[in-house]
Amino acid sequence: MGPHPAVADVRRAVREALAALTHDAPEGPVLVACSGGADSLALAAALGFVAPRAGLKAGLLTVDHQLQPGSAERAEKVAALAAPLGLDLAEVLTVEVGTEGGPEAAARDARYRALAEAADRLGARAVLLGHTRDDQAETVLLGLARGSGPRSISGMAARSGRYLRPFLDIPRATTVAACRALGLDPWDDPHNEDPRFTRVRVRTRILPLLESELGPGVAEALARTAALAREDADALDEWADRVYQDCALSDIGGSVTLSVAALEALPGAVRRRVLRRAAVAAGSPPGSLSATHVRAVDRLVTHWRGQKPVDLPGGRAAVRRYGTLIVAISPIP
Amino acid sequence: MGPHPAVADVRRAVREALAALTHDAPEGPVLVACSGGADSLALAAALGFVAPRAGLKAGLLTVDHQLQPGSAERAEKVAALAAPLGLDLAEVLTVEVGTEGGPEAAARDARYRALAEAADRLGARAVLLGHTRDDQAETVLLGLARGSGPRSISGMAARSGRYLRPFLDIPRATTVAACRALGLDPWDDPHNEDPRFTRVRVRTRILPLLESELGPGVAEALARTAALAREDADALDEWADRVYQDCALSDIGGSVTLSVAALEALPGAVRRRVLRRAAVAAGSPPGSLSATHVRAVDRLVTHWRGQKPVDLPGGRAAVRRYGTLIVAISPIP
Repeated sequence: MGPHPAVADVRRAVREALAALTHDAPEGPVLVACSGGADSLALAAALGFVAPRAGLKAGLLTVDHQLQPGSAERAEKVAALAAPLGLDLAEVLTVEVGTEGGPEAAARDARYRALAEAADRLGARAVLLGHTRDDQAETVLLGLARGSGPRSISGMAARSGRYLRPFLDIPRATTVAACRALGLDPWDDPHNEDPRFTRVRVRTRILPLLESELGPGVAEALARTAALAREDADALDEWADRVYQDCALSDIGGSVTLSVAALEALPGAVRRRVLRRAAVAAGSPPGSLSATHVRAVDRLVTHWRGQKPVDLPGGRAAVRRYGTLIVAISPIP
Repeated sequence: MGPHPAVADVRRAVREALAALTHDAPEGPVLVACSGGADSLALAAALGFVAPRAGLKAGLLTVDHQLQPGSAERAEKVAALAAPLGLDLAEVLTVEVGTEGGPEAAARDARYRALAEAADRLGARAVLLGHTRDDQAETVLLGLARGSGPRSISGMAARSGRYLRPFLDIPRATTVAACRALGLDPWDDPHNEDPRFTRVRVRTRILPLLESELGPGVAEALARTAALAREDADALDEWADRVYQDCALSDIGGSVTLSVAALEALPGAVRRRVLRRAAVAAGSPPGSLSATHVRAVDRLVTHWRGQKPVDLPGGRAAVRRYGTLIVAISPIP
C-alpha cells in the first residue's frame, strides 16, 4: 500500500523542486524553514523523506520571533522534530523583530535575514519555504488591491535565488491532511487568525466570499493567473533589458541619455520599462519610483508639447532636449 | 460659473475620446448606445454637449430587448431624450434575444449585433458605450475568477474597432451625480439588482467587501491593473507576431511546421503565444484552445522525451519530428 494521497502529493512536490536544483548549487544541505504550522511541517516531513533518497543532506531552521510568551520553548519543540522526520540537523534562530513597515513586514524582514545568515553559514544548497496555493491566492488579491499592475499580481516565485517554494500548487488542505496522515500535530499560530492583519482578512473573509459567489476554484484560478502574469512580466523585462542598450545613448555617472526616436518605436509596455530602468540607473530609488512617475516621463516621449522637467524621487529629474531624453540629478543644467 | 464638477468630468472624458478619433474614420455621426441608465444617460448628455462644439453630428441608439413588459414604451422615452440633449438623431433598435450562452450573453450578443448593423447603416464614425470604472473593476474580478491569465484580467478596451468607452476612468457615482445635476432621471434596470447574475453579485457583494476589508480605492486599483495588463498583453502579442515568421518554416493548407530551435530561444510567455497562433493557423478553433492545450504542446519543446502527439480542438494535433514541431489535421501521417 502506498502513502496517503496527501503525503504522496507533498513528497512529489518536494521531489520535483529538488530535481530542478542545478549542479552549480552549493554542496551543502537543503534547508526547510519550519514554523511548526501545517504547511511547513508537511514540507519538513516531505524533505526528511525525499532528501536521503536523493542523496542530499537536509536540515530544519525554525525562527523564534520572541513575540509571544513561550515562543522559545515552542521553537525548541519544532527543532526536536527534525531527527524523527529524517532531517540531519536543526537550528533555532532567535531574532529581534523591529517595528519598521508594521508588525507583519518587520517580522518577515527579521525572519528572512536570519534564514539568509544561516543558509550562508551552513553553505545551504537551497532553503524550502512552505507557501501554499492559498498563500499565493492571498498574495494576488493583496497585489490587486495595490493596483500596481501585472508584476504586483504575479505573486511569489516558485524559485527566487536560494529560496524554493515547492507547494505553490498545493492547497493548504493537502498539507493539513498530510500532517494528519503522518500523525504530526501542527501548531496553529494565533496571528493567523488575527483580523488586524490584512492577509488574515483576505484569507478568512474575502476568499471564502469569492468562492461562494463565483464558484469553487477561485484560489486555483488566482494562483494560475499569478503564474501567467509572472511569465509575461519576465518576458517583458527581458525585452526591455535587450532594447535598453539600443535606447541608451549614454549612461555614465548617474546621468542617462536616451534616444526619443528609439523609444518611440517601442510598444508602451516595453518603453515604460526602459524608462523605469533609466531612472533607476540615474539613481532614483526603485522603491519610491511609482507608475505615475514613469508615466509622466513617458509623456515627454508620447505627448511632447514642451513640458518642464519631470521630478523623480531621489532628487532626480527627466527632461527632453533635441530628440533625447535625459534623466539625471536635478536640476539638470 | 462653470458646470457641476461631475458634468465637467463626463464632458471632458467624451471630448478626449472624440479627439483621439483618427481622420480616416467615416464621416457620419458619432453614436451613443443609451439604455436610459445613469451611465449611458450621462454619456448621451455629454455627447449632445460636446459633439456640436466639435463640428460633429451625433445620434442616440437604444435597444429594446423585449424582455420586460413595457420595454418598447421605455425605449421610446429614451429615444425622445435625444433632441433635448442636443443629439441629431435617435433610433430604437428592437431585438429578439436568444438563449445561447445564458441570459446575459444572449442579450449582449443581440444588442451588439443591432448596434453594429445600425452603425453600418448610418455610416457612424464611432459608437460610444457607457461602461464605467466600476464596470471595469467587475470585469477584472470576473476574469480573475476564470484564471486564464493576464489577458482575462485586462478588462474592456477604451477603444475596440468602432466602439469607444470614454468612461472607463469615471466612477459610476460621477455619472449618477452628472444626471442629477442636469435634471435627468435615469432608469434603474431591475436586472442590475438581480443576484442570479454573477456580475450583479460581484457588484453588490464582492466589491463592497473588498472596499471595506482592503480599504477604499479597490475599484480604481482593479481598473489600473486592467489597463497595465492590457498594455503588457498587447506588447507580448506584438512580439509573438514578429517572431512567428522566424519560427514558422512553413504554414500552408492548415499544416504549420515550426523550428524547435527557434522556439527554444524564446521566453516562455512569447513561445506559448507563438504556439497558440500556430494551432489557430492550423485550424484549431481559438475559443476551444485552452492554456492547458498550449502547455501540452509547449512540453514537446521544453520537456521532450518522445511524447506521442498532443490532440488539439478541431481535430488537430501537434507532433515533434526531427527538430520541427508540426501542427496539422489529426492523425498526422
